[in-house]
Amino acid sequence: MSNQYISLKNLKFLLYDVLDVEKLTSHPYYQDHNREAFDMMLDSALQIGDTYMRPINEEMDRKEPQLENGKIKVHANMKPLMKTFGEGGWISTTFPYEANGMQLPITVNSATGFIFNAANYSASVFPFLGSGAAGLIHAFASDELKDFYLPKIFSGEWQGTMALTEPDAGSSLSDITTQATPTAEGHYLIEGQKIYISCGDHDACDNIVHLMLAKIKGAPAGVKGISLFVVPQKRLKDGDLESNDVETTGIFHKMGYKGAPIAHLSMGNQGDCRGWLVGEPHRGLSYMFQMMNEARIGVGMNATGIASAGYYASLAYANERPQGRKIDNKDMSLGQVPIIQHADVKRMLLFQRAVVEGSLALLLQTSYYADLEKVSEGEEKENAHLLLDFLTPIAKTYPSEMGILATSAGVQCLGGAGYCQDFPSEQFFRESRIHPIHEGTTGIHGLDLLGRKVMMKNGKASQLFLAEIEKTIAEAKNHAELEGLAQKLSEAVQKLQKVTFHLLGLAQKQQVENFMSDATLYLEMTGIIAIAWQWLKQGNVVINHSDENFRQGKLMTLRYFFAYELPKIEGLAQKLLADDFVTVEMQAEMFE
Amino acid sequence: MSNQYISLKNLKFLLYDVLDVEKLTSHPYYQDHNREAFDMMLDSALQIGDTYMRPINEEMDRKEPQLENGKIKVHANMKPLMKTFGEGGWISTTFPYEANGMQLPITVNSATGFIFNAANYSASVFPFLGSGAAGLIHAFASDELKDFYLPKIFSGEWQGTMALTEPDAGSSLSDITTQATPTAEGHYLIEGQKIYISCGDHDACDNIVHLMLAKIKGAPAGVKGISLFVVPQKRLKDGDLESNDVETTGIFHKMGYKGAPIAHLSMGNQGDCRGWLVGEPHRGLSYMFQMMNEARIGVGMNATGIASAGYYASLAYANERPQGRKIDNKDMSLGQVPIIQHADVKRMLLFQRAVVEGSLALLLQTSYYADLEKVSEGEEKENAHLLLDFLTPIAKTYPSEMGILATSAGVQCLGGAGYCQDFPSEQFFRESRIHPIHEGTTGIHGLDLLGRKVMMKNGKASQLFLAEIEKTIAEAKNHAELEGLAQKLSEAVQKLQKVTFHLLGLAQKQQVENFMSDATLYLEMTGIIAIAWQWLKQGNVVINHSDENFRQGKLMTLRYFFAYELPKIEGLAQKLLADDFVTVEMQAEMFE
Repeated sequence: MSNQYISLKNLKFLLYDVLDVEKLTSHPYYQDHNREAFDMMLDSALQIGDTYMRPINEEMDRKEPQLENGKIKVHANMKPLMKTFGEGGWISTTFPYEANGMQLPITVNSATGFIFNAANYSASVFPFLGSGAAGLIHAFASDELKDFYLPKIFSGEWQGTMALTEPDAGSSLSDITTQATPTAEGHYLIEGQKIYISCGDHDACDNIVHLMLAKIKGAPAGVKGISLFVVPQKRLKDGDLESNDVETTGIFHKMGYKGAPIAHLSMGNQGDCRGWLVGEPHRGLSYMFQMMNEARIGVGMNATGIASAGYYASLAYANERPQGRKIDNKDMSLGQVPIIQHADVKRMLLFQRAVVEGSLALLLQTSYYADLEKVSEGEEKENAHLLLDFLTPIAKTYPSEMGILATSAGVQCLGGAGYCQDFPSEQFFRESRIHPIHEGTTGIHGLDLLGRKVMMKNGKASQLFLAEIEKTIAEAKNHAELEGLAQKLSEAVQKLQKVTFHLLGLAQKQQVENFMSDATLYLEMTGIIAIAWQWLKQGNVVINHSDENFRQGKLMTLRYFFAYELPKIEGLAQKLLADDFVTVEMQAEMFE
Repeated sequence: MSNQYISLKNLKFLLYDVLDVEKLTSHPYYQDHNREAFDMMLDSALQIGDTYMRPINEEMDRKEPQLENGKIKVHANMKPLMKTFGEGGWISTTFPYEANGMQLPITVNSATGFIFNAANYSASVFPFLGSGAAGLIHAFASDELKDFYLPKIFSGEWQGTMALTEPDAGSSLSDITTQATPTAEGHYLIEGQKIYISCGDHDACDNIVHLMLAKIKGAPAGVKGISLFVVPQKRLKDGDLESNDVETTGIFHKMGYKGAPIAHLSMGNQGDCRGWLVGEPHRGLSYMFQMMNEARIGVGMNATGIASAGYYASLAYANERPQGRKIDNKDMSLGQVPIIQHADVKRMLLFQRAVVEGSLALLLQTSYYADLEKVSEGEEKENAHLLLDFLTPIAKTYPSEMGILATSAGVQCLGGAGYCQDFPSEQFFRESRIHPIHEGTTGIHGLDLLGRKVMMKNGKASQLFLAEIEKTIAEAKNHAELEGLAQKLSEAVQKLQKVTFHLLGLAQKQQVENFMSDATLYLEMTGIIAIAWQWLKQGNVVINHSDENFRQGKLMTLRYFFAYELPKIEGLAQKLLADDFVTVEMQAEMFE
């Protein structure tokens, strides 16, 4: 059976034909790049995926990391793989030349990330976290810290992590209790517990560098008292590495992406865990938030990558597996037909494809805004920033939530085989379940969208989002084949506006809890519309594509999305307009 | 944390207050029973669940059965547990006295089954399969076979199984190739392969008795050539058991319900596997179908049981886990509140409860029709039979499909903890995924409902179903609090009728493939309406309930279902009425 996990053709279609990512090279920061350079990156990522990552995907799941004598042991291939990532510059791709990076556009980096995610999600987590941690150091830390840590993280020798969650503070970060006590030597003494720290300890790197949130003694309560520290597992002493009193007290056994360990860490058991302040005191969470858009787009991409792998696994099976006969020709003297000929199987494949390629398009689009924010000026920069902020909760959540349903449809295509470990589909299903949880739960992103992003800058971000959709609709109206779909999207947008005004009316009436009670549904509705927009946008481009099967396949999937997925907003809108606040009125003691 | 997995109060409410199951005892067949007897069965099932099943639920998942030297080894407690089931009469509850059964109503048996499913799904599979196999023997086999096999299966000494699926024939049973060759001694020689045979081999019983589909040499092609055989793993020779040439050639490693093994069996490798014909030749599939309603209600109950366990695990967590503050009072000097105070968490709990208690109500209702079919006469019997046939695909599929989403919501309530094995939620999620696959996939049930049941007896079954809903609506209109909901259900039913007529119009125009292409969506829509009916029916009864929290909780969940779940039919109806047959038009080569 085919081992395909992504479509390079589709990825290039989105990057070059839909987004025109080459246009970014007109900005001085990206001027050294061109399409050939981007293609090389994509090919090279695919080669790493094929050669080193995909072959150990199942094995990393079956033989999960173990904590032995205080050290987590991961798959033996992770050490050479981290070296491969380091040597290829994959951990520092988007960093500027002066930090030894490639100055690669974020959009292209998202695309190569997608390839790694799809090839082997667990393995892709390691370099992704290194990049994130390095990003914080690069943006906010002193030159001394930068010079010391960045080269080691970029080379893959040291692992970077983000250490936020504590036993009593997950969604509510304002309640963290890890403490930092200043010393005369300039460093702080760290004491506390962190849990669910991805790659928080393992033996594929020589050191682990935690970007850790903690409170300086005497800091104000809540988020305004949170500071950011570099807390390495080992610190330098006379040219050697010695323990920094960060103990791995536990490993969590997860349902999926078992190849990447998550650790329980205990800092300062010996009273000698040293942390170095990054940036200014009490600004830790705001630093974190400045990196969060990219981290969240990254999680959306993780989910999309897994769903892509699930889609291709089920597509290959559906093409090869004979079962049953066509519903209008049950002649038993004929052999069984491949299940891809059954409408219900095609529906499940179209669903997966619609989720995967729609999510991928939105994530690349969002990454493109991140690029524009980075390299453009004035109003263009400001608009890109607003669009990026607005789209981030959507681009994180839609792929995460729908990734579960997509991989589930993949399992269903295989029937009993889908439920068994002889095929990878069940693994993809288990792995996909994490994404609505980490990097902000779906509930948190609903609050972010409705409570913060919608009215940000007097609603300017929402307006920009709607204006982008209107542009796509206007163009689609020029194509006879797309006109009806354009009209449908237009009506959907009107419905969304009606819902938005209705909800803002509740806020105005000071019904804060009612206003926010269905933020998750609001996010779901907006997500469906955002993906419909991305599908119509693809339609505008593909309509003149020369590859007939590609053209037709895209248009069919577009049609599928508008026929089966977009109508889901009807039920959501009905609820959101109904003013029935049963989830607010329900009381704990009434649960039975 | 609480280890609750079901609500006995709710179960009794449904059995006695909503269904009035005691009324069944007016039929001579059930005359020896009464409410006290039923209560004793429920209490006793709960005691077995608490004492023997729930405590090993996680362990059976972690240490999954292994195939060693041709024999599958299961959890050591399964052997005494099978004895407990056997001695308590649990494998023969619904069988008549003359077969050593209890003549317990199917409805009450469904309720106790629900308790076992929720306590430990894997462990509950063993006796459930024994019952099913015994049912076939009891209904169709010769007295000789009955006398030989039934006592051993009922005592839990021998395991009964259903052996249908083969490597090349799952959904398409007409394509099975296992062959039966008659011999002069009366038995047949069996040759072939069976896969995914639940409890197809294990060491908790002394023998495994397969109720197996095979084709007698020279039989007609297709389903009309399928016969049913008893094929034991071991057969009697001179008072001892000897091998019957049924080899266990493989065990499948599954995503969930790992405690119950599924086997790959190979019959006749030595040319000496003997099978005994059950009933007449070539009628095997029709026998199977006569037992299938109960088996499918059983699967719906399996799914509901797991979802119930998932619901109570997340409810307990939500009551105990402090995180964050109320959205309208973020004062940091206040402590964190239990997450059950957040509207979005209550929404996820209400969703689970709505699915669990709605599904349970429908399954008990359907079981009640099975009882009426069994013990009533004339038109009442005929109507019960039609309602049972009509509701079976719905009662199997709604709980199965929604069970995945319910257990997923359970995971989400726990956040990161939900994804880790320290809590049972992730196990419930993995286990729930099997139900849309086995005992007929969701796709198959969609075809069954739309292609067979809707127009069965000139649409009489559909009409009876709608008439039952109308009765419930009429009663609800007498209660001011329920009137609006009754109106909503009435509109939903009208929408369903509109969709039905529209689809039948396609059939009339000979557009068979188009007509059936969205049968799965039609099943989904009908399922939502069936559950809405069951919720309104509960509302009619609970409205005067004396326990105020129970009353309010039920009414809130009813409101939740009508506010959040029922509107989902809008999107489905829009698609079903749209005449866009993209899944038919899509071609294999257009998938990219």
